[in-house]
Amino acid sequence: MLSFENDYTEGAHPKILERLMETNMEKLSGYGSDRYCESAREKIRAACGCPGADVHFLVGGTQTNEVVIATMLGSCEGVVAARTGHVSVHEAGAIEYTGHKVLEIPETEGKIGAETLRAYLHTFWKDANHEHMVFPGMVYISHPTEYGTLYTKEELKAISEVCREYGIPLYMDGARLGYGLASRETDVTLPDIAKLCDVFYIGGTKVGALCGEAVVFTKNNTPKHFMSAVKRHGALLAKGRLLGIQFDVLFTGGLFQEISRNAIGTAERLKQVFHEKGCRFYLESSTNQQFVILENSQMEKLAEQVRFSFWETYDESHTVVRFATSWATRMEDVEKLAELL
Amino acid sequence: MLSFENDYTEGAHPKILERLMETNMEKLSGYGSDRYCESAREKIRAACGCPGADVHFLVGGTQTNEVVIATMLGSCEGVVAARTGHVSVHEAGAIEYTGHKVLEIPETEGKIGAETLRAYLHTFWKDANHEHMVFPGMVYISHPTEYGTLYTKEELKAISEVCREYGIPLYMDGARLGYGLASRETDVTLPDIAKLCDVFYIGGTKVGALCGEAVVFTKNNTPKHFMSAVKRHGALLAKGRLLGIQFDVLFTGGLFQEISRNAIGTAERLKQVFHEKGCRFYLESSTNQQFVILENSQMEKLAEQVRFSFWETYDESHTVVRFATSWATRMEDVEKLAELL
Amino acid sequence: MLSFENDYTEGAHPKILERLMETNMEKLSGYGSDRYCESAREKIRAACGCPGADVHFLVGGTQTNEVVIATMLGSCEGVVAARTGHVSVHEAGAIEYTGHKVLEIPETEGKIGAETLRAYLHTFWKDANHEHMVFPGMVYISHPTEYGTLYTKEELKAISEVCREYGIPLYMDGARLGYGLASRETDVTLPDIAKLCDVFYIGGTKVGALCGEAVVFTKNNTPKHFMSAVKRHGALLAKGRLLGIQFDVLFTGGLFQEISRNAIGTAERLKQVFHEKGCRFYLESSTNQQFVILENSQMEKLAEQVRFSFWETYDESHTVVRFATSWATRMEDVEKLAELL
Amino acid sequence: MLSFENDYTEGAHPKILERLMETNMEKLSGYGSDRYCESAREKIRAACGCPGADVHFLVGGTQTNEVVIATMLGSCEGVVAARTGHVSVHEAGAIEYTGHKVLEIPETEGKIGAETLRAYLHTFWKDANHEHMVFPGMVYISHPTEYGTLYTKEELKAISEVCREYGIPLYMDGARLGYGLASRETDVTLPDIAKLCDVFYIGGTKVGALCGEAVVFTKNNTPKHFMSAVKRHGALLAKGRLLGIQFDVLFTGGLFQEISRNAIGTAERLKQVFHEKGCRFYLESSTNQQFVILENSQMEKLAEQVRFSFWETYDESHTVVRFATSWATRMEDVEKLAELL
Repeated sequence: MLSFENDYTEGAHPKILERLMETNMEKLSGYGSDRYCESAREKIRAACGCPGADVHFLVGGTQTNEVVIATMLGSCEGVVAARTGHVSVHEAGAIEYTGHKVLEIPETEGKIGAETLRAYLHTFWKDANHEHMVFPGMVYISHPTEYGTLYTKEELKAISEVCREYGIPLYMDGARLGYGLASRETDVTLPDIAKLCDVFYIGGTKVGALCGEAVVFTKNNTPKHFMSAVKRHGALLAKGRLLGIQFDVLFTGGLFQEISRNAIGTAERLKQVFHEKGCRFYLESSTNQQFVILENSQMEKLAEQVRFSFWETYDESHTVVRFATSWATRMEDVEKLAELL
Repeated sequence: MLSFENDYTEGAHPKILERLMETNMEKLSGYGSDRYCESAREKIRAACGCPGADVHFLVGGTQTNEVVIATMLGSCEGVVAARTGHVSVHEAGAIEYTGHKVLEIPETEGKIGAETLRAYLHTFWKDANHEHMVFPGMVYISHPTEYGTLYTKEELKAISEVCREYGIPLYMDGARLGYGLASRETDVTLPDIAKLCDVFYIGGTKVGALCGEAVVFTKNNTPKHFMSAVKRHGALLAKGRLLGIQFDVLFTGGLFQEISRNAIGTAERLKQVFHEKGCRFYLESSTNQQFVILENSQMEKLAEQVRFSFWETYDESHTVVRFATSWATRMEDVEKLAELL
Repeated sequence: MLSFENDYTEGAHPKILERLMETNMEKLSGYGSDRYCESAREKIRAACGCPGADVHFLVGGTQTNEVVIATMLGSCEGVVAARTGHVSVHEAGAIEYTGHKVLEIPETEGKIGAETLRAYLHTFWKDANHEHMVFPGMVYISHPTEYGTLYTKEELKAISEVCREYGIPLYMDGARLGYGLASRETDVTLPDIAKLCDVFYIGGTKVGALCGEAVVFTKNNTPKHFMSAVKRHGALLAKGRLLGIQFDVLFTGGLFQEISRNAIGTAERLKQVFHEKGCRFYLESSTNQQFVILENSQMEKLAEQVRFSFWETYDESHTVVRFATSWATRMEDVEKLAELL
Repeated sequence: MLSFENDYTEGAHPKILERLMETNMEKLSGYGSDRYCESAREKIRAACGCPGADVHFLVGGTQTNEVVIATMLGSCEGVVAARTGHVSVHEAGAIEYTGHKVLEIPETEGKIGAETLRAYLHTFWKDANHEHMVFPGMVYISHPTEYGTLYTKEELKAISEVCREYGIPLYMDGARLGYGLASRETDVTLPDIAKLCDVFYIGGTKVGALCGEAVVFTKNNTPKHFMSAVKRHGALLAKGRLLGIQFDVLFTGGLFQEISRNAIGTAERLKQVFHEKGCRFYLESSTNQQFVILENSQMEKLAEQVRFSFWETYDESHTVVRFATSWATRMEDVEKLAELL
């Protein structure tokens, strides 16, 4: 059966598995202190153009959001995020579980605007009752967003400036960052992100790894006792090598960039196919997730031969569904889908 | 200086202080097990027409919301509330601090509608990804709301029905319940509330007490180890008598109802005065809080002689402000305000 | 019936109630910003010989411990306390509820020793695995302790020095501080405490107030957003005057000291009576709590005419019980007990 | 350099990596719903002789303890554990971070005794003040313990009986369970554990997997919304296959048992070597961890050629150190160590 269900249906890029095999019987120290973690850190720093960056490896996306947000916020602070943000909606309350509120603000196609953010912060600090409210302590954005959309460099700069104006850090969730950077329509690079964000993560799980996310603190701002905090969140891997080796492979010889481009190439063809077939788009995305509106009976029929994701109800007779490509998607599968449609 | 700043500017109704004096040297057992707490419980049960109710006394409103919500929610559940609800906005993140999300839904004049609630719950359970989201575990309403508005009996019934349909409890924040019940425009009684809600509280702090809120569990549904949970939240008073005696006095001879009517009578005159002077209302309230829109220079001038509360910015040149009356407001002060205007 | 059950069986010192009455109808601002709170703060600063101290009023003891400890600890830190400490045993897990561990160390008669503390901290920092453990982030002592015992000035100094050596704050729980300061056997004064501790509280609930504890930050070290943190813990009183007025009365004209002495005088007579009757002491205390070992049938018989507290099982046929005096204990009641024995 | 530093220095058993390669490009559904997870669950149920068991895969040990304990405890409950237990000492406060206290009781060589436990529970429930304390809500044991020691079947039965008497679940941390089951001195089997415990986990990280622990709920007692709770703790793996495939391999053809025996065989030879060389043992263990007492200069010299773990200071001139074997330890390395000694 064809599947465009999500970007984590396969295992890992074969080069990663090969490297895990080659290094398997080496005796390495635990908890991220091994040489492969160190090598991966060095390569990520170089790719970010940020020699002073502090890089830590965590296992999954929700975990990374939870650990980063909980350790960077002060005790009465919350994280500002789009109302549709992953931390707002799809993490089973992981942020609140750490005692912090997600301060939801309006968005457009998954993106928050610098002016919306500024207005929110301005209103907060002007409110005579703000001491009875949750202090905005950091800003969360995802790039690409939940809707596959991307911030322009101009937009990122503007958001970053607002954060600096108000003295709060900007955090970017990069679960699908590889696909964002590989988009033909973006003008944002990894060094731009390292410059404009205070902390961000480069997602591995959805971009070729078995698991793993690389958190990058860019401003000499790693929270105190960070390793202990990671442990306390149940997020510290004894065999840290599993994460280090994977990122070391991904950041060797441009593999991360190369496999990200495959997702974009197949997504672009997918988009073209949908356009040709006259499908309505819920929104236009230049990354690996495509959102189309299907009539319900058409959707059910298609579902017999292709896997895709329910996104949300559009109206009584239509549904928004998502088709995702990834590093592992084969162009021939897209062509098969074209035939089916 | 005249003050309509809020409904907690004075101490307590004199009868409360007198009774505290009379009983002062009695040796009583602690933590709410004394005879005055028991007597107050009995009187509250009677006033609610709910002989099986379980009544507990807590100290303040935020504390009560926090303790009730945290003890009634299951581990992956959140509380559904109006986007403007007190727990959503004005409790410094107290609910999130207990690890639970406030699931904000749209409101009108501070009230949530049964249909909005049903749609929210329906969408949640139909969502194929709902296991990655926060489960709606209870519904929070306030009556009167933050805007002084009231639910009708019909509206309350409809909300209560939705809650029963989905098997989740309905909780009413009654910080100003006395004023709600005393409104001339309400058809809701205390026994109605006891019947329709699973838990609610009768606010004392804003209705004649020095401090204290009476939580009423109406359906034989007090959370397990409740007294220990209260202690764990730092909310257990050693001298529980302080709360018991106050509620015992308030619920003797209709004092609670009588002093609530004073707030309504003075608020109605206040409203009339604003209408006569041609003030714009932000919204119409039949309880003790009145929200008017003042032109900024007018507001500043008035502020030299009267205290009132900033509510929110209306536009560049206007501000929404609140005037509150209480059990202690004297009609002559309203007349003085009339003269000033 | 005679009662030596605890030190919170009566209401408040009559002067407090009188003052609440006198000031009752004054319109005052909320949340601790009124003039009585300010006056009480000033008097407490003077009594502490610490003009720069920052004073905040909270409602009860567990709440105070919870708020102070949670706001002063960093994210991976715990509080070091005696294994018998109130925060370790008798607060229903309030500290852990804020996410922090109580690091229990051995004690003698409720007191921790400077050398035990130093050894603990030394071992922690030397442990190659300490990043997998909870960091000791502050030290908690109570004075008097749960057993009515007192630290000498020398002992306090030594503990304070260890804390400074390791860069962590020293916090004193002063729920019964008044009785500790009034003991004939102490050489510790309030200014000593202000000098040696980084934060402490002066208990009101057990020393003449209806409720209320005054937290004193002595080293310009109030946690950021403290008022919001208090609110978030459900601990912010709308009518802050209730606390301010009480402490203002207690710290006027030496009332706090005077009423504390009554507890000591009656406790000394109580002790003498027990000695005369040949009772075994569980330990010797110079404050208002006396712990004696009663044979079980003797205990049951006595319990028919006097109230006292179960403390712990001593052996199969004996029980440790506690007799407490307070600001309100009358000498004639002690004499009646003497007759009964 | 020789290394006996711990039991997670190598990667995974080669068969696991081979299987990951073979299945790598299969498109599988996420979050543990794939066919390999299902197959592994079935095999674990069979190995446990518990067809009704519910099996979930988590990533690491601290995470597993945190998720299981937090989801099984009620709101005012804590977990009873040995004072030396992993959850008490070496998890950076992960349990407390979920709001629950670890109730530490005395142990012998890492084991708690049924009578110590019964006495603790008896005293708790008899204590007139127990509502002011943390309720014991479950019992945590590890098997093997932190000291490599094992419970006998008789001891486990007795602990299990106490738990049933008091109506609280028994939880076994099986981070090294494979090595416990493979010990020549044990009479405890996996079906015994499934019968006597309410929940336990089979550790993969230390017994041949890259990562992964299999939690087994044996009494139809999986906490409500468990998958969402796992997500909320940041513990849900998108590519659940990574865990399922590993456990599927480990529980095929007795691999788990076979590789566990290698650790025991090499540990026994190690023990023999230490005995021959006249080393003092800190305690005798029949599993893969051996604790010996070295004179400090001897320890430093040895450390130049062999890696082992600091355990704790014994006295001024001696240190307790740990030597660990694992599924990957080669007998020739033990012989090399023998030569060195």
